[in-house]
Amino acid sequence: MPAAEDSSEQRWQALPLRDELRGQHPYGAPQLSVPVMLNVNETTYPMPQEVVEAVTAGVRKAAAGLNRYPDREFTSLREKLAGFLGHGLSAENIWAANGSNEIMQHILQAFAGPGRSVLAFPPTYSMYPLYARGTYSQYIAGIRGEDFVQTPENVADQIREHRPQVVILCSPNNPTGTAVGLDVVEAAYEAGDDSATMIVVDEAYGEFRQAETPSALELLPGRPRLIVSRTMSKAFALAGGRLGYLAAAPEVADALRLVRLPYHLSALTQATAEAALDHASALMANVERIKAQRDRIVTELQQMGLTPAPSDANFVFFGGLDDAHAAWRHLLDDGILVREIGIDGHLRVTAGTQGETTAFLESLRRYLS
Amino acid sequence: MPAAEDSSEQRWQALPLRDELRGQHPYGAPQLSVPVMLNVNETTYPMPQEVVEAVTAGVRKAAAGLNRYPDREFTSLREKLAGFLGHGLSAENIWAANGSNEIMQHILQAFAGPGRSVLAFPPTYSMYPLYARGTYSQYIAGIRGEDFVQTPENVADQIREHRPQVVILCSPNNPTGTAVGLDVVEAAYEAGDDSATMIVVDEAYGEFRQAETPSALELLPGRPRLIVSRTMSKAFALAGGRLGYLAAAPEVADALRLVRLPYHLSALTQATAEAALDHASALMANVERIKAQRDRIVTELQQMGLTPAPSDANFVFFGGLDDAHAAWRHLLDDGILVREIGIDGHLRVTAGTQGETTAFLESLRRYLS
Repeated sequence: MPAAEDSSEQRWQALPLRDELRGQHPYGAPQLSVPVMLNVNETTYPMPQEVVEAVTAGVRKAAAGLNRYPDREFTSLREKLAGFLGHGLSAENIWAANGSNEIMQHILQAFAGPGRSVLAFPPTYSMYPLYARGTYSQYIAGIRGEDFVQTPENVADQIREHRPQVVILCSPNNPTGTAVGLDVVEAAYEAGDDSATMIVVDEAYGEFRQAETPSALELLPGRPRLIVSRTMSKAFALAGGRLGYLAAAPEVADALRLVRLPYHLSALTQATAEAALDHASALMANVERIKAQRDRIVTELQQMGLTPAPSDANFVFFGGLDDAHAAWRHLLDDGILVREIGIDGHLRVTAGTQGETTAFLESLRRYLS
Repeated sequence: MPAAEDSSEQRWQALPLRDELRGQHPYGAPQLSVPVMLNVNETTYPMPQEVVEAVTAGVRKAAAGLNRYPDREFTSLREKLAGFLGHGLSAENIWAANGSNEIMQHILQAFAGPGRSVLAFPPTYSMYPLYARGTYSQYIAGIRGEDFVQTPENVADQIREHRPQVVILCSPNNPTGTAVGLDVVEAAYEAGDDSATMIVVDEAYGEFRQAETPSALELLPGRPRLIVSRTMSKAFALAGGRLGYLAAAPEVADALRLVRLPYHLSALTQATAEAALDHASALMANVERIKAQRDRIVTELQQMGLTPAPSDANFVFFGGLDDAHAAWRHLLDDGILVREIGIDGHLRVTAGTQGETTAFLESLRRYLS
């Protein structure tokens, strides 16, 4: 069918689209292709060959049975995820979905939705308001302290003020890279102690945290309203495989079974994620290499007179630029793509391989001189 | 963490679960394992070896790049889906998601949702009310005529009465197996001609239709509020791969981009679906074999004195049983699982291989004698 000559936006005025969607634009980081891609916090090391082989073998086995619906309970995968997380967790504590996007959607479908609200603290992951919109939940933008810091008192006060049904603490936070202390998570949990508030700690970048930074997994025992979400997109180098997951009390997983679409995790996704978990040590070796480059970026940016935030993630948020867009453009002209995050004088860069990191630092040094 | 001794349902009373979810149970056909599984309308022929090889090769290639996010626009896959459907469609007419479950969720998120309604006509696919619940849409159960037949007048009258934002016509219908004529689809479209109603024709079983039954794809030109949804779960033997899709005007796909979660289709899903599409002829050869068994079931059930509905699908809905549950139980004792669909004296059976079909028919004949 030939497209009409008028624009797509004009054409969909003739459709009964929901009012709040009219005039909106689809989410998306630009999918440009340049030599050095440091814009969406992927692992840039090539997938280890042993993982490629394991994924291929797992999918070959699964392919013969693709005519059948997948295991709706993905029990084997949940067991392996629990084993990876440790902390005494077992399969019944785990839930998984197509990326942490869908994990968050499931949480909001069950615990937020129309007439309910979600509190998060910008600057933070830009998808949170879109999860709220997609589930018709009210999104409340909380306030951070100076230098974007969150304190127990500040977070607890805002929970008591707004009484949201879901609070999202992104730790390490995207785009700032900083983790919150467990005292902040505890204070948030206590502030919602009339059983009205789920506390979600989004640890998408948890595997990259500094040695002295604890995981909120430590707080799970005895806290049924606490959810710790993770993803295999980052540390497991599986952004293309779409596997997000969470750890929580078993009744949280049971609640999410009510809102998930049946068979939401394909047999391919299950086989691939299991293969990657079987080779976690090879992938975690790359995590250590990335952490070394991350720390190097912080050190060298400081030496350039810029102001990088301390990072528990696989990226660095830095300020001190007179014109962040000009710096971004200069890097792009050198074939290096980093992320503009809409904060004056600041950019965010993913820690890549040693070579990519060197290319980024040298290009930025040339820009500053 | 050890589970508490009280039941999960008791435990989640302590969580701020939405009221409409309390006391609900997760969807699910029983995932029993017996020798002859004819209960969920899967293709029971083993996946052709050439497709297993193609899927494996495609995933091996994709696996090396899994560290990167997938193509958010899945352009290559959309091109191949358009090519398969024909009817002058191109990539911009196609949308895809993780199973037709997610296709329907996207449609309801964009066009239904709170304060809006969805009209479908039971007995029909049991997930429709759950899609409505998951998107907080009102579900309206329309009325069919005698023998579950839908006429143009009957459907149009109910659309004018209820003024729903979304109408779902399942054709061929699950569980009855019968298709609606294009006159019904046209009447539904005209009844919503104040641009307030999207008409969705769910052709999940469309490839199995009788030679003289047309597809609603023929009606797409000039009808921007018409959506025809399909799935690769049935004819493409890809239930485990989770790939649903739809054809519609380009602005419908543009609208759904606003509600989809970014990167919702993994690189694995894209590679697998493309491999299956590249080998469509091998898979469609099995469709012809299944249609022959489907027609055989109708003929032989009539010979047994039962009342099978004419079927355009890969299953047969039949009545005339004194005690459907006893018949279901007898079949299960013989290692044959069919579907109880909650209609007195009726069962639904998937057309399997020749051997499976023979086993079903012989077991049922023994039960009746």
